Amino acid sequence: MGLTRVLAEYLVQSRMQEIPVPVRHEATRSLLNWIGCALGGCHHEAVTYAHGALSAVSGPGHAVLIGNGGKTDALSACLLNGIAGHVLDFDDAQPRNTNINPSCTVAPAALAVGEYAHASGSEVLHAFLLGLEVECRIANTVYAQGSTRFFANSTTGIFGAAAAAGKLLQLDAQQMTWALGLAATQAAGLRIVFGTMSKAFIVGRMARAGAEAAVLAQQGFTSSEQGLEAPKGFAALFGPGMDTTPIIDGLGREFEVSHNTYKPFACGIVLHAAIDACIRARNTHGINPGDIASVTLRVNPAVIEVTGNPAPASGLEGKFSVSHCAAVALIDGAAGEPQYSDERVLAADVQALRTRIRPLPNPALARHQATAEIRMADGRLLETRVEHALGSRGNPLRDEDLDAKLAGLAAGILPPKNIPQVLQQCWNIEALPDIRELTRLIVPA
Amino acid sequence: MGLTRVLAEYLVQSRMQEIPVPVRHEATRSLLNWIGCALGGCHHEAVTYAHGALSAVSGPGHAVLIGNGGKTDALSACLLNGIAGHVLDFDDAQPRNTNINPSCTVAPAALAVGEYAHASGSEVLHAFLLGLEVECRIANTVYAQGSTRFFANSTTGIFGAAAAAGKLLQLDAQQMTWALGLAATQAAGLRIVFGTMSKAFIVGRMARAGAEAAVLAQQGFTSSEQGLEAPKGFAALFGPGMDTTPIIDGLGREFEVSHNTYKPFACGIVLHAAIDACIRARNTHGINPGDIASVTLRVNPAVIEVTGNPAPASGLEGKFSVSHCAAVALIDGAAGEPQYSDERVLAADVQALRTRIRPLPNPALARHQATAEIRMADGRLLETRVEHALGSRGNPLRDEDLDAKLAGLAAGILPPKNIPQVLQQCWNIEALPDIRELTRLIVPA
Repeated sequence: MGLTRVLAEYLVQSRMQEIPVPVRHEATRSLLNWIGCALGGCHHEAVTYAHGALSAVSGPGHAVLIGNGGKTDALSACLLNGIAGHVLDFDDAQPRNTNINPSCTVAPAALAVGEYAHASGSEVLHAFLLGLEVECRIANTVYAQGSTRFFANSTTGIFGAAAAAGKLLQLDAQQMTWALGLAATQAAGLRIVFGTMSKAFIVGRMARAGAEAAVLAQQGFTSSEQGLEAPKGFAALFGPGMDTTPIIDGLGREFEVSHNTYKPFACGIVLHAAIDACIRARNTHGINPGDIASVTLRVNPAVIEVTGNPAPASGLEGKFSVSHCAAVALIDGAAGEPQYSDERVLAADVQALRTRIRPLPNPALARHQATAEIRMADGRLLETRVEHALGSRGNPLRDEDLDAKLAGLAAGILPPKNIPQVLQQCWNIEALPDIRELTRLIVPA
Repeated sequence: MGLTRVLAEYLVQSRMQEIPVPVRHEATRSLLNWIGCALGGCHHEAVTYAHGALSAVSGPGHAVLIGNGGKTDALSACLLNGIAGHVLDFDDAQPRNTNINPSCTVAPAALAVGEYAHASGSEVLHAFLLGLEVECRIANTVYAQGSTRFFANSTTGIFGAAAAAGKLLQLDAQQMTWALGLAATQAAGLRIVFGTMSKAFIVGRMARAGAEAAVLAQQGFTSSEQGLEAPKGFAALFGPGMDTTPIIDGLGREFEVSHNTYKPFACGIVLHAAIDACIRARNTHGINPGDIASVTLRVNPAVIEVTGNPAPASGLEGKFSVSHCAAVALIDGAAGEPQYSDERVLAADVQALRTRIRPLPNPALARHQATAEIRMADGRLLETRVEHALGSRGNPLRDEDLDAKLAGLAAGILPPKNIPQVLQQCWNIEALPDIRELTRLIVPA
């Protein structure tokens, strides 16, 4: 039996009660974290523009537009909620070389198709968990050496969205195999769009495309049955030379969601150790930013590769600039959404400090490690070393941290009384007979 | 100025009256040919299944569903008409190594967005022509050595659809640059889906995605400004090592549509020389298929690479089997849609003859050349050589051949009285004040 078929059979046969409770709890944390991010991003102009552009071609309301109120068709909801959930770069991260944000394509598909299919909370969580599993396993294998060409989130995320939607639509193994083939042939995303609205767009696009693959396969729409493993299939084209068999090793016994991490800072996970080091240095030493002569940051080489831009010109570009992140961490003691506004990126104090920050790659440092060496104008050298960045597996956000993160992101978006209800329904998701008991709370009305 | 920007500026500034009349005439031939193919394919189950799957998520009717009646939103029309136009593999072909079917993504986008924008016939033809230009130039460069990995139609076709839609939506140069960036990051399509419904699907998908890119860019949705030429842009990832500068060489002076060709047979263009040789042999020598001992076909190596399947199991697979094509050509003297039904592929006489056909690659033969050496049971050896396959640039279909092709494909789909009207409005397209004067005729009602 081919690898794609093995994966499809697993997805079809999986039963929620066979999945260990701690795994389900981590999936719940992942979903709650993603919902917070979607609430925080729902008024971003990337969402507003896409909604404006596409409302004329959208269908009747099956699923909520998170944070915006109103409903739209299930596939448009995948796209628009997918943009909202990823546009702040505040979501989750798989602590592997792949560095993908696992929930970004899967959560919007699971929620919107769940509403469309009138699924229970448990069914949605199960589908979400399986989608993460498929996506992470593909990413771990195809991008085992990291992803420096194609965008890992989108190119592997479409499989997760297809798997989650396919599970909710109760596809049989043949249909699920076709859905994965339809995902393979639609997989897309270039890293050159980082720093533009198109990064969040292609994530939403793949959420939609994965869900569409499942909807088509349900009708009997045919595709390759070896989408992943064929000689010119997805793995061969996107990760040439990689052995695909690990995709199914330990399937059903080991769960990738167990390794998921959640971002405390509103930017790429590779930046978090450096930000954490700067915030700790600031708070420990009571640094006045105006007295800083220079900062040397020692970081994993991936930080420089992805975020080496020394002079960002917009909020979005600021999320891809380690110099900007360090500057706001030292000045503001924070790296939340306000630190990535266009205004903050262009502010004089931030720009001045940015030019005094020198990031240096150090292959001996893991991604969750960093050192900040701060030379003060008076000659003092203040050194701060972070072994486990806040939010990493060694120093994870607690459940109450996730509550606080969602509450912060939802402030001003949802009526205050909704926020504790949203948290309650999230933690209680497995008991909800209809997922709409949660989704009806994540809109303003 | 970057290459993508140069292309965008050209698209925005192009004026129809600057385009030579013979170029416009070839564009008209291309559009008429594609409309015929969409009519012929409109009842294929790939269209029916996709329509069934997606009608619940489609928006209000801006554009016709060709051959099916009713309307749907402009982007859904791109997808569904795109599937219809390509599912028969009967469309057009660029006589280059790329071998793309230029109209397959561009025509559905130009027509549906043209209806949406209430464009004139001349505006639609102009946008269509520009879309073909962009797509073919990208394909000529990125796939100059042929496309053996990604599907050239879909991965380059999305740029053509974006360009055509962007022109009809009157994007400015900045918006058009973003639209091309949005196309780059969505470009997708694997050759492994050949022989399944997903081949036509990904074509329709890219028509839709290209049009969506234009709709988004119109709203100010940002993307990379170097989608094509960036170090990790489209060209670098899909055609590694290729020089991108030919994409804009001679822009506005040389027109790719001038080289377009139209298929007389309902399968991949690489098969046409072999089919033509078999039909000519049959008609010249009055061959009784039952008396054939063996057939040796000498063909360009690409024929074997793409269509070497000796034992197809379905109509769609038959389109990717040179053995099947030769067998029906010898038995039926034809290679139209009836020769690619499941029934015909599984028929005993066809299966029996298929096993006696041996295709051999010959690098000395161009794609428009082939030789059939037919050994009869009585020992005679009948040899037929085709120098210029019917439909190739050296032996092109005439305007009246295209009329007959459309009429044949539209029979049973449109009321008979519509067919001459459709032809008249196609040839007269530049004079139509509203494209809907044509599109209203290509539906049954």
